Amino acid sequence: MYDEFAKIDWLKERFSRGTVPFSEVIVGIGDDAAVIDFGGRPAIVTVDAQVEDVHFRRELISYRELGRRAVIAAASDVWAMASTPRGAVVALTLPDAFTDADFRELIEGIAEASQLTGARIIGGNLSHGRLLSITTTVFGLPSEKAITRDGARPGDRVYVTGELGAAALGLAILEAGASSHEHAESFITRWRRPPTHGLVVEELARTATAAVDISDGCLQDLQHVCAASGVGAVVHASDLPMAPGHGEICAALGLDPVELALTGGEDYELLFTAPTDVEVHLPSTSIGAIIEGREVRVLDDEGQPIQLGRTGYRHFS
Amino acid sequence: MYDEFAKIDWLKERFSRGTVPFSEVIVGIGDDAAVIDFGGRPAIVTVDAQVEDVHFRRELISYRELGRRAVIAAASDVWAMASTPRGAVVALTLPDAFTDADFRELIEGIAEASQLTGARIIGGNLSHGRLLSITTTVFGLPSEKAITRDGARPGDRVYVTGELGAAALGLAILEAGASSHEHAESFITRWRRPPTHGLVVEELARTATAAVDISDGCLQDLQHVCAASGVGAVVHASDLPMAPGHGEICAALGLDPVELALTGGEDYELLFTAPTDVEVHLPSTSIGAIIEGREVRVLDDEGQPIQLGRTGYRHFS
Repeated sequence: MYDEFAKIDWLKERFSRGTVPFSEVIVGIGDDAAVIDFGGRPAIVTVDAQVEDVHFRRELISYRELGRRAVIAAASDVWAMASTPRGAVVALTLPDAFTDADFRELIEGIAEASQLTGARIIGGNLSHGRLLSITTTVFGLPSEKAITRDGARPGDRVYVTGELGAAALGLAILEAGASSHEHAESFITRWRRPPTHGLVVEELARTATAAVDISDGCLQDLQHVCAASGVGAVVHASDLPMAPGHGEICAALGLDPVELALTGGEDYELLFTAPTDVEVHLPSTSIGAIIEGREVRVLDDEGQPIQLGRTGYRHFS
Repeated sequence: MYDEFAKIDWLKERFSRGTVPFSEVIVGIGDDAAVIDFGGRPAIVTVDAQVEDVHFRRELISYRELGRRAVIAAASDVWAMASTPRGAVVALTLPDAFTDADFRELIEGIAEASQLTGARIIGGNLSHGRLLSITTTVFGLPSEKAITRDGARPGDRVYVTGELGAAALGLAILEAGASSHEHAESFITRWRRPPTHGLVVEELARTATAAVDISDGCLQDLQHVCAASGVGAVVHASDLPMAPGHGEICAALGLDPVELALTGGEDYELLFTAPTDVEVHLPSTSIGAIIEGREVRVLDDEGQPIQLGRTGYRHFS
């Protein structure tokens, strides 16, 4: 299958054999973010794009929330490296119909996220285009050390912050136009306003052997960690944290609650692994364990493997 | 007039009053690139977007040239700071009809530019979208010092590298489908394959009081330097360097050769200012001088001011 991740593998290979010497690169293509060192402290660099009709539809989110979301989605990759966002450059593509008021709302959202993340907006690019898009490059500094995806070891526990599938369920509620459930608004908010993790990065650096942010879906992001670390994992479906109302609303919308928790994208929660003898002080839930091998399995209450219809969000599938 | 530059001024103001402390920012919004210092050598950061149907039409340029061009256009802002590109992250938005072969061609062009600029590709982002776009963030290191836009002083001479309006004329030839002139191909190449400036950055750092890359058109970019420096300028139309065939092809296409040289965008040549007592060792042409005041005037052979129909390329005008 030639898809997004196949492309990334190919890119990783293609650019690893580049003959441009660059000793400053500590971590390159394939992790949440790159780590570079210009002779001072190592710096973290990551880029994320939010493209109209791919990542959002304009009628489902305000411009202010959209701007906020774009920066937080990019900062999320920095937090997942146990690092603190410090600066960002933002490239905007603005369609014809975009008014001054729209622009200012979008920028106020970006400014709000700049405050929330600590990423000062230091530059950018404006261009015209048929569709609205926001491409954010965020720079950060690691706390104690940068946590990459490749440090998970057999025996480690697998943890996630927050609840799973909440953002995807919020989007599903919006798309179905079904917001009558008492918890519906809180799911919608989870999609529109992803969480920040600035307060936990130091603890993450002390605790985690590997970390990733959950943007493609818990299972797929766990698979990224396993592939990078050369390990497998077991996830217990009954341990997956889900927000109040998750099951009921899924039932009403004809969605499988466990599948949504495992595969719903854009939670922007953190998934990390830690040895069993390390006390975990981060607000998080243990959902499984790292094992030998390469396989990632999900087990039901009886310990039987669950087959899922899909493994998460991916482009070009 | 509410346009691209008005937006940038507003953004500059908006983010300068941000309360996020970021002592690492040495140069922020409004120059070619930002300068940040994470405790080591100051690093240069810039971002540029190439969006389908805004910056290019797919039928006018190969994917390889497009990838090459996108990275060089971004690196150009780093060179204009008298700095050397060292790394880049590239965010791609790829449409449905984009084949594997197209993708590889695009990436080979990016890899080629990586070699040419010295910017190692350290990360990126892939996403699906209706239109092809390439957003490149380039990091670099200054040679001796970073040259910004605000150092031009009355009495300085104004210099440009290369020839002016050649890229815009190449694009005009392509759009008119008129490539019979003996020099037509060389202009087309100038648009498709912008120049690199890695070899002159050290000399630029030693020579220049201010510098900018010519992406919006010579006159407009000179105006950016003047606005940042709080000065005016006089440009002599007869001193503008134009490539062989420029006048003839302009005549055939009904274009004003001087206006095109002054306002044609995407040359990606460098414009810089230097005191008269400094010997300039860069291959360049003196086109005028910095004066007191705020006005930028273009004079003809008799010293009479020339009125131009437009001042250069800008989005949202």
